[in-house]
Amino acid sequence: MKTPKNVYLDHNASAPLCVEAINAMQPWLTGPVSNPSSVHRSGQRSRAAVEQARGQVAKLLGCQPSAVVFTSGGTEANNMAIWGGLGWPPHGHLVVSAIEHPAVMEPAVALRDLGVEVTFVPADNQAVVSLEAVQAAIRPNAGLVSIMAANNEVGSLQPIEKIATIAHDSGALFHTDAVQAAPWTDLRPLTTASDLLSLSSHKIAGPMGIGALYIRPGLDLPPFVRGGGQQGGRRGGTEATALIVGFGAACARTRAMRDESGVRVAGLRDRLETTLLDSIEGARRNGSESRLPNTCHMSFAHCDGNVLVARLDLDGVSASAGAACASGVAKTSPVIDALSLPAKYSAGSLRLSLGYETTESDVVRAIHAIPHAVHAVRESGLEVTR
Amino acid sequence: MKTPKNVYLDHNASAPLCVEAINAMQPWLTGPVSNPSSVHRSGQRSRAAVEQARGQVAKLLGCQPSAVVFTSGGTEANNMAIWGGLGWPPHGHLVVSAIEHPAVMEPAVALRDLGVEVTFVPADNQAVVSLEAVQAAIRPNAGLVSIMAANNEVGSLQPIEKIATIAHDSGALFHTDAVQAAPWTDLRPLTTASDLLSLSSHKIAGPMGIGALYIRPGLDLPPFVRGGGQQGGRRGGTEATALIVGFGAACARTRAMRDESGVRVAGLRDRLETTLLDSIEGARRNGSESRLPNTCHMSFAHCDGNVLVARLDLDGVSASAGAACASGVAKTSPVIDALSLPAKYSAGSLRLSLGYETTESDVVRAIHAIPHAVHAVRESGLEVTR
Repeated sequence: MKTPKNVYLDHNASAPLCVEAINAMQPWLTGPVSNPSSVHRSGQRSRAAVEQARGQVAKLLGCQPSAVVFTSGGTEANNMAIWGGLGWPPHGHLVVSAIEHPAVMEPAVALRDLGVEVTFVPADNQAVVSLEAVQAAIRPNAGLVSIMAANNEVGSLQPIEKIATIAHDSGALFHTDAVQAAPWTDLRPLTTASDLLSLSSHKIAGPMGIGALYIRPGLDLPPFVRGGGQQGGRRGGTEATALIVGFGAACARTRAMRDESGVRVAGLRDRLETTLLDSIEGARRNGSESRLPNTCHMSFAHCDGNVLVARLDLDGVSASAGAACASGVAKTSPVIDALSLPAKYSAGSLRLSLGYETTESDVVRAIHAIPHAVHAVRESGLEVTR
Repeated sequence: MKTPKNVYLDHNASAPLCVEAINAMQPWLTGPVSNPSSVHRSGQRSRAAVEQARGQVAKLLGCQPSAVVFTSGGTEANNMAIWGGLGWPPHGHLVVSAIEHPAVMEPAVALRDLGVEVTFVPADNQAVVSLEAVQAAIRPNAGLVSIMAANNEVGSLQPIEKIATIAHDSGALFHTDAVQAAPWTDLRPLTTASDLLSLSSHKIAGPMGIGALYIRPGLDLPPFVRGGGQQGGRRGGTEATALIVGFGAACARTRAMRDESGVRVAGLRDRLETTLLDSIEGARRNGSESRLPNTCHMSFAHCDGNVLVARLDLDGVSASAGAACASGVAKTSPVIDALSLPAKYSAGSLRLSLGYETTESDVVRAIHAIPHAVHAVRESGLEVTR
């Protein structure tokens, strides 16, 4: 008997590489590829492919191609925004939320080490950052405000356009980490509202190792990765042709599939969530009403999330107890902290994140597997109090 | 009639992706790939592949795998070494040579903007940095000395082990940018001598968009790209599984082919160089006797290098007038400046860089094409005085 394919419900960690990206990359991965900065024709072929992909990214964002700078991923894009958004040398007040991804949080802490004033704005217990909290945090010398578009753990959407207005009214630049929002949200209004916006390729089913930072035209952002004069001097390093081409294809696919997939996936997610809440005692769902259509974040009382993920894996369901990059780390994330969960729930988080290719049958399998797994973990006594 | 394949003599810009890397990457580019930080089995398969490749990089360097941190390329590795090598916040005196790649030079300038003392050590007219010059530059508070292993434009090898000793005797760390040396040099003694060493995948025929920094065990280097706790907290960002696997395969190929290829390619390069010097009036070769076996850097009097490269391209020879990342920039590089060329030669540089797959027939074609091209460019009057 054939083992059925795993049910992959960990798209917020990484969306499997889509066939559109695979096909677009193949010519650049099976034959010689020149440095796109080389002036000979072979280099110019790489250059043309890179620039075509830049156009595809720009179309997803609703901006001109020259506003797109390729980076090695969402993490580098965030680092670049936080470092560069305060000018060079960095100066002025930096405002970020307390539920940002570590790729925003850690550069903010690094800048604080250099003497930059940094304020971490708290979120409410649905992991939403309020306009009032942002307004209260901003000081007269504010240089940059950075708030993520959608939280990667619980999926809560943030009021980005209104926060951007507050930042701009205070004379600060506004950056949003749109990495997790990108597969599900029309990015064009976010881009229009922002000075800087981060994207990651592998979260929209493009290849790993590539991402982009949108830089508002006219904004002279200092480079973060410095080197040769690539990308108009804004990011040193040879542009990785194959990856960029794959990223471009993934952006085109996202534009084509996003709206329809969003509606379909929200239906599956709601069914998954409602059924689990009904069938498991001591279960709660986390995050705000206004959230990503693919993300189901739950907490189970008296149940260890890491043990639960391991158990579900054996049952053929790939899920996560939190952000992938913090997996295995035995402390709760700032996002979970923000939720102010009752103690018995605090170790029992499960993130189920769906994707464009998730089927009804995937959800049915998860609906069967998860209650059994929660029960088994509770029975095993492997509960950890943190 | 079939057009013959181009003669590719621009390996210092990028070495075409090798079949070993292509084959190793295919499974990770044609099916779903999980985030290697995900704890489920699919994530663990990615993790195992990443760690196997880390071992292959380590073997090329002669170090333990945990000393290898993956970066998005040589440029990021250099940025990380220069930023991190002075501790956090960066402090102390930084010494770099005046002929470093911009990926070292530009971070050094950025640190100077932050108030760090930086000294740029001049090179001699063979693009070699002398021990005396390094010794003279080092101040009592020296924190980091960074000198490239081989120059990317003219190929001159630097006395790395002796310079490292000088740095260490002064209490400073030592970093070497081994990006261009890697295809041709046994890196193990360089690694042993250094605290930090930078590598790029695509210069050894691996994929673009990936590289590594060696960090001496026990050295607690601050991260440069900050984010999730990946790679022991030393480099944030999802590890790009496919790229890393391809890079590992390219390292294994380099170990297997380097010594034999080096001898063969040096013979071809010498034949190319000698013939061109004999057959073209007003030609000189640049760089030191002790240099990379694949690099031929020449200057032609009264001849514009950029025009020459364009002409050679039409004749089926891909070459470069200098570093790819500065191509099209109408100013001479610091490396060319160091050569102190007579004025009539200063605009007429040509870099021919061979690779493992360069054949005798490639070299014969170049030997025929280049004298004609130099003559044609000189005749055209498109000479530029800079």
